[in-house]
Amino acid sequence: MQRSYRDSDKALVLCMAKYKVVFRPIGWTVEAEEGETLLEVAARAGIQLLAQCGGQGTCGRCEVLCEGEVKPKDPARWDPQVERGRQRVLACQALVAGDLVVEVPMGAVPQEVELSAAVPVAPTVADFLARHGLSPLVHLADLRLSPPSTTDNSSDLERLTRALSYHSVATGPLKVGLSVLQDLPARLREANFEVTTIVADTECGPRLIDVRASGAQTVYGLAVDVGTTTIVAELLDLSAGVSLGRAVQRNPQARYGADVISRIIWSEEESSGLEDLRSAVLSSLNGIIAKLCDRHGVAAEDIVAVSCAGNTTMTSLMLGIQSRWIRRAPHIPPAKMFPVMTAERVGLEVLPSAPVLLAPAISGFVGGDIAAGVLATGMTDTDELCMLVDVGTNGEIVVGNRDWLACASCSAGPAFEGVGIDSAMPAIPGAIEGLSYDREQDAFEFSILGDGKAVGICGTGLLEALGVFVQAGITDRAGRFDQEFASPRMRERRGESEFVLVWGSESASGEDLVLRQGDLDNLIRSKAAIHAGITVALKQVGLDTGALRHVYLAGAFGNHLDISQAIVIGMLPDLPREQIHYVGNTSLVGARLMLCCAEARRRTQLIAERMTYVELGNVPEFMDEFVASMFLPHTDLGLYPSLASSS
Amino acid sequence: MQRSYRDSDKALVLCMAKYKVVFRPIGWTVEAEEGETLLEVAARAGIQLLAQCGGQGTCGRCEVLCEGEVKPKDPARWDPQVERGRQRVLACQALVAGDLVVEVPMGAVPQEVELSAAVPVAPTVADFLARHGLSPLVHLADLRLSPPSTTDNSSDLERLTRALSYHSVATGPLKVGLSVLQDLPARLREANFEVTTIVADTECGPRLIDVRASGAQTVYGLAVDVGTTTIVAELLDLSAGVSLGRAVQRNPQARYGADVISRIIWSEEESSGLEDLRSAVLSSLNGIIAKLCDRHGVAAEDIVAVSCAGNTTMTSLMLGIQSRWIRRAPHIPPAKMFPVMTAERVGLEVLPSAPVLLAPAISGFVGGDIAAGVLATGMTDTDELCMLVDVGTNGEIVVGNRDWLACASCSAGPAFEGVGIDSAMPAIPGAIEGLSYDREQDAFEFSILGDGKAVGICGTGLLEALGVFVQAGITDRAGRFDQEFASPRMRERRGESEFVLVWGSESASGEDLVLRQGDLDNLIRSKAAIHAGITVALKQVGLDTGALRHVYLAGAFGNHLDISQAIVIGMLPDLPREQIHYVGNTSLVGARLMLCCAEARRRTQLIAERMTYVELGNVPEFMDEFVASMFLPHTDLGLYPSLASSS
Repeated sequence: MQRSYRDSDKALVLCMAKYKVVFRPIGWTVEAEEGETLLEVAARAGIQLLAQCGGQGTCGRCEVLCEGEVKPKDPARWDPQVERGRQRVLACQALVAGDLVVEVPMGAVPQEVELSAAVPVAPTVADFLARHGLSPLVHLADLRLSPPSTTDNSSDLERLTRALSYHSVATGPLKVGLSVLQDLPARLREANFEVTTIVADTECGPRLIDVRASGAQTVYGLAVDVGTTTIVAELLDLSAGVSLGRAVQRNPQARYGADVISRIIWSEEESSGLEDLRSAVLSSLNGIIAKLCDRHGVAAEDIVAVSCAGNTTMTSLMLGIQSRWIRRAPHIPPAKMFPVMTAERVGLEVLPSAPVLLAPAISGFVGGDIAAGVLATGMTDTDELCMLVDVGTNGEIVVGNRDWLACASCSAGPAFEGVGIDSAMPAIPGAIEGLSYDREQDAFEFSILGDGKAVGICGTGLLEALGVFVQAGITDRAGRFDQEFASPRMRERRGESEFVLVWGSESASGEDLVLRQGDLDNLIRSKAAIHAGITVALKQVGLDTGALRHVYLAGAFGNHLDISQAIVIGMLPDLPREQIHYVGNTSLVGARLMLCCAEARRRTQLIAERMTYVELGNVPEFMDEFVASMFLPHTDLGLYPSLASSS
Repeated sequence: MQRSYRDSDKALVLCMAKYKVVFRPIGWTVEAEEGETLLEVAARAGIQLLAQCGGQGTCGRCEVLCEGEVKPKDPARWDPQVERGRQRVLACQALVAGDLVVEVPMGAVPQEVELSAAVPVAPTVADFLARHGLSPLVHLADLRLSPPSTTDNSSDLERLTRALSYHSVATGPLKVGLSVLQDLPARLREANFEVTTIVADTECGPRLIDVRASGAQTVYGLAVDVGTTTIVAELLDLSAGVSLGRAVQRNPQARYGADVISRIIWSEEESSGLEDLRSAVLSSLNGIIAKLCDRHGVAAEDIVAVSCAGNTTMTSLMLGIQSRWIRRAPHIPPAKMFPVMTAERVGLEVLPSAPVLLAPAISGFVGGDIAAGVLATGMTDTDELCMLVDVGTNGEIVVGNRDWLACASCSAGPAFEGVGIDSAMPAIPGAIEGLSYDREQDAFEFSILGDGKAVGICGTGLLEALGVFVQAGITDRAGRFDQEFASPRMRERRGESEFVLVWGSESASGEDLVLRQGDLDNLIRSKAAIHAGITVALKQVGLDTGALRHVYLAGAFGNHLDISQAIVIGMLPDLPREQIHYVGNTSLVGARLMLCCAEARRRTQLIAERMTYVELGNVPEFMDEFVASMFLPHTDLGLYPSLASSS
């Protein structure tokens, strides 16, 4: 009897229908039982949808787009919006009732830390270091102290300070934190008074951060670019200033909002909002540190210095500083210059007393990433007029030379970082970073990062795709797909035109990689904002693009970018190609320079101090310029003579 | 059946014999059942005997002296030593078998924080402040900042720094900690940009420690003397530099050892030893802070600055710095000058960012209490030769003037602090602090602190008692009780002579307060060590006592001391009375000056830097001088002409 009861119970479970749920854009597939909520299924897949209300259907945070059959958990709370043939529902209120494709925000998908090899130093950087020398944020000194005796009974700290001063390592009063002092007596004696000291360079003089037994010491530094979309860190051998390798991870703050503004809102509206954001970025950084240490066989406590560059909001959130006033006019940052802090205080899991240097901000919307970026370009070393254009979630523009600097920021949207574009991904292995199109064969040739099939398309790829599309006639100059374009790649899905870049048979996931009309619209808005920003910023200082001698294009696009395509789409002005330089992640390069060179640290402060900030929101013609820039390359083709002649 | 079983069970309990256990020296009485261990009984009484082994009889920490019947718990571990008719046993191994009197270490008895009224400022201090002005460790400035606008979009921190610089409150780079920065944006806006800033004066310049809404602000400071035996703190209104009141508590580190050396041993030998000692002193300080705040209606976060003076070991232990090398020749302190730390980092429960200033040490055995003490005496303001004698567990001697300073330390033992003397107590209400004896009536007249009956006798009282005894013939010049002295007060107990100071009928506890021969021997050893120290320290600089113009006698004796008695017993040299000044707790006074005056802070550093330390352990004649000083006043009566003439 009992046994048959159990059997029937089991049968009951077995007969419950099972369905397949595919999560886009990642392509993860999980099995789900009829009647499970999408929130439960997503959680099982490791997808971290927000649910402040605990799945009660009241907070509205767990919204997803789904295609397939779902049933309401509670009809009173059921109000799905239909978009392009898909339903926008709350995952906690939608019960599985059939096979489903569910589109979740990229921020909800935890991304692993990706390691990559060391990147060679840019020539400008090598040149800067050659001219100014290697002088890292911390320096080591081997000291052989005279042991205490009745005739020399100075304190342990005095003995050390005297030796440091004698060897000119640190003159003047030496600062020391309590944790170092607590260990000092034992450290000196364990080492028989032959020690290596590690001293950091701070805004208030030298600070003793560690004392170790003498011997061959290799110490490391970490340069970090804390981006809104992506966090990248580089591990450096400080004695030589060389890179061991990089690690990258999507900023897990994306879970709380794709851009700076929506994250600030999260920090304001949720009681633990600021802490959510702070701990998200710190856990990512600590994961990156752990992975870099593991990969390169480095002990975390041998990372003795950290240099970070990030935009003003990212820096503030990382430090737990309320940044709500950054998003409200007049967009005041909490601070521009930050004191050198300890890793322990910031929450980074390296040597606790390691100094954490933060690149100084210029305004609420032009941050330390730009100050570091200007340093990295070398534009403050020349009399020629230079421009730095950093394309990220915001587009930041700096114009100037060794004598003056002005900057502006325009909200470009995160399209070039791939946010809101299904096929997009960071510039990590599997990403399409360049492409060309053969009309005759109706075939693309891709440049893919790493070995293997295409997983998605990164920022450079997206920018190039837009250029390729307009040049091939796939779109018109307004960026609309040409429905007459004869190719099986051009198709209509869910009421929207899309173009297949990679057929499922050739993609890593087995699904087609496409760009949709909405994706192109986003990309064009982004490039238009940047072009308008460039034009207006130059006008504010009485110049036009013709005066520019060098344009440095920066951003997390990847490692290579076909500059011509940035002109073809009208993001950059029509200058001779050799005057435009793709300089990659200048924020990271600047952070690395600051870590390695005292002159870089001094210079970055000067850059931030003397840069004039132009608030584009206060400039009426910005909107006109933006609208005029919504064409490929521009409504005024006269601004792009090189394209006119080549077409 | 069941019920009767229960009844018989109860009867079994009821018929177990109950005994009375009196704990000396506190006089607490508790009831104990036959067969309970003394460790259990003591714990029930709130007495914290150490028992690292958990009462297994192996660590030997819970030793007590008991009088009455006890039985061994485990005969194998039973090895009582008999001393003066009492048994020295391990409390965990001794089972109650009759009424008992148990003597426990004073350190095991938790002592409440005792509050006392503000102490008037000594004339030297008032004079110092009058000459140098009030310039507390932190200063307040009311600032009305111009609110941000599109034409003035400096950061919050810059805006504040600019205003501070404009008002000359803090010029140069302003240091700021992360916690202040985290709150800054909200604080400024809540206050509508009209704020009071609190800026601390540190060795590396001004540090912003708080920003509050403008308005009448009263902020407070805490001056602390961290003594080996007693912790005293004074709460000050920083705007006026006046004292609100004091609090005192026996240093609960006493549980781990009565003196500096035994505590260092504890910190070395026990795995959590350093943390035991650190948390003991911090919990005492935090209890003192809470009680002072409660008494004076002050919020803990309105205590914005702390100044501490303590000997080198006390300072190190409070900071969690391993001090094991202080006790080993050549007695090296971890540091002499300490950086200004934050209260949060140190572990003090006041404003977390409040600066904690630590008086600088001179050597392993001459600490910040002495540097602060020299400052408090004013001896660095004069050309005349001065001497400071600070009597505590150690006797520290400083000789010098405005041009030079030399110091020495002698191990006086804690007798004058009452340790090891049953009737002794700190200088708090109930303490006999002075006495005279009428031979004819065989009666004492006492000066008792506060109202009420005598509870015990404090340092000044002990010192005066010794003088009174020798003058009245109760003891001979060697300090031995004269058995021929005809008084019922003179008696023999447990094989030892003792003299009744207060009959039980007149004491607070109802028990006789006595001084025993052993107590007198301890006091004489203490005074002899000090006298020998004075003599040898002067000889080292080629001087003798005749050259002294001022002698400042300091120590936690209480508020009043009959200087003549310090000469009668030969602790101090025979100088004209008007040249000897009892200056009380100069460590606390110095800490208070440092809290209130920049010149005091500068001067204390100078005092510590330029003072020469004489290691008495390296001077062969010290032991001869010590032995010669074991008489009252001295073997060489020629050194005490004034006593010869008066007798």
